[in-house]
Amino acid sequence: MPSPSRSIKMPDAASGFTTRISNYRERVETALARWMPDETDAPERLHAAMRYAVLAPGKRIRPLLVYATGETLGVPVGRLDGPACAIELIHAYSLVHDDLPAMDDDDLRRGRPTCHRAYDEATAILVGDALQTLAFEVLARDHAMIANTSRRLRMTAILARAGGSMGMAGGQMVDIEAQGKKLERGALDNMHAMKTGALIRAAVLFGAHSLQEPREAALHALERFGTRIGLAFQIQDDILDASGDSARLGKQAGADAAHDKPTYTGLLGVDEARRALATVYSEALEALEPLGEDAAPLVTLSRFIVERDH
Amino acid sequence: MPSPSRSIKMPDAASGFTTRISNYRERVETALARWMPDETDAPERLHAAMRYAVLAPGKRIRPLLVYATGETLGVPVGRLDGPACAIELIHAYSLVHDDLPAMDDDDLRRGRPTCHRAYDEATAILVGDALQTLAFEVLARDHAMIANTSRRLRMTAILARAGGSMGMAGGQMVDIEAQGKKLERGALDNMHAMKTGALIRAAVLFGAHSLQEPREAALHALERFGTRIGLAFQIQDDILDASGDSARLGKQAGADAAHDKPTYTGLLGVDEARRALATVYSEALEALEPLGEDAAPLVTLSRFIVERDH
Repeated sequence: MPSPSRSIKMPDAASGFTTRISNYRERVETALARWMPDETDAPERLHAAMRYAVLAPGKRIRPLLVYATGETLGVPVGRLDGPACAIELIHAYSLVHDDLPAMDDDDLRRGRPTCHRAYDEATAILVGDALQTLAFEVLARDHAMIANTSRRLRMTAILARAGGSMGMAGGQMVDIEAQGKKLERGALDNMHAMKTGALIRAAVLFGAHSLQEPREAALHALERFGTRIGLAFQIQDDILDASGDSARLGKQAGADAAHDKPTYTGLLGVDEARRALATVYSEALEALEPLGEDAAPLVTLSRFIVERDH
Repeated sequence: MPSPSRSIKMPDAASGFTTRISNYRERVETALARWMPDETDAPERLHAAMRYAVLAPGKRIRPLLVYATGETLGVPVGRLDGPACAIELIHAYSLVHDDLPAMDDDDLRRGRPTCHRAYDEATAILVGDALQTLAFEVLARDHAMIANTSRRLRMTAILARAGGSMGMAGGQMVDIEAQGKKLERGALDNMHAMKTGALIRAAVLFGAHSLQEPREAALHALERFGTRIGLAFQIQDDILDASGDSARLGKQAGADAAHDKPTYTGLLGVDEARRALATVYSEALEALEPLGEDAAPLVTLSRFIVERDH
């Protein structure tokens, strides 16, 4: 278990967020289920496959970051369901496409056959495509979100940047090209900043932009936090992939090594990777200091992210 | 050549739009080239493949519909480049994904190897993904577009609906599932209304929503026009596929029959398909009547759409 190098006071309220995690997961899952067309709506196979891919039990880390940031800033919770939902749809689409035979060729995801195994490849491609589209539809059409249309367009721009060729999709490209190659720490950090970091940072910013007038200082602190916790998430992911078991992970453990992908554990070894995680985790917590005790929900969630076992 | 069953006065201004087509194509291609990262920006391979897929010579029918609608309503042309660009990016992404081996498995597009043939399958999947993302980024970030943020969010919603599981992506799913099956005329119309019609209708609506205050009557007329011209476009596409030659089409002629896909020519025969086209074309022109002679650009473009030979 990594511990921060600087001590951060963990206020009592921190445990409060833990008790609300299952409630928030339920909120976002309800929103996801509501936004996706029913399995009885044509084309039925596509809609069934979309629901299969999205409603599989997931950790919902990104939506939780939206809610925790919202709690930190005092955003009414009803405003956060749409943004949380949009972020999770982009995440879900990326998993479906990354698992495809032409990409990582994975058979297991969230403890179940991957979308193209449960359905077929053409359906899985269309599922990913339609889930991405739906994410932007949610930002444009959700009525419970912040009414301020400039903030909503800003969120659309943030999500598009995070998901695109300079963000998540670009990171996956770099990841594929890096197979079998040795990346230096800087290049590895950069790849993950694009591949997973950008969307995690976007989740944090979504919480902030759901406020009518987010303060610049808070945005700045949260942006820095989002970047660091995104990296911490990825290092822990690599540690789990290297040392976890498939049943608990719900996906093939050791898959990265099998694909000869550059990882933090591959580059640094598990022990050094744990130390790197502790450093980055500590930087994430430091970034929250300007927000004081209000940031307790994010502190709690950060600990959950780096201590999770799947 | 189909001719409308009711005579539509073709004002002199109509020929004016023809002279501006190459100018509009240049405008949208300049905008597309500007929005896509340069080939020297990392990840270079992804960006080169995106540019390859989008900047190949194309008819740019959908952007032309945005410009022609804008001309009809008197929208300043600078406001239309962003919307035209967003529509074309969605169209380009759909071509890249539809051509994939797991989908239509096509080798030739716009007279060149398809994206997955020129690059590889993983790259082509990511190209499509990133082009879709970029379309929404353009709507959120283009500064020359209409400033009214509600109109921009409305366009985002229109594009998402047109592209998603009830629109283009859903239509491709129905198309794949229909291979080897015989569809009745109603089901065929419905499939194409989703697969190609929705995005063509969105192009027309983008022109209208670039106006500060589009009149309800004009929106209604244009919505009906968009639906009919979308269907006319598809029937002509089937006729060209059945009777055209690959060199002129820039893609494999007869590909639909080879895939055993339901088509208008397959269902009705070429002669009857031409008559169906004449009827739908005539309905498209009738829909424009409330707009009077202002609609000359759309009348001209409609004729171009149904008379094109590729």
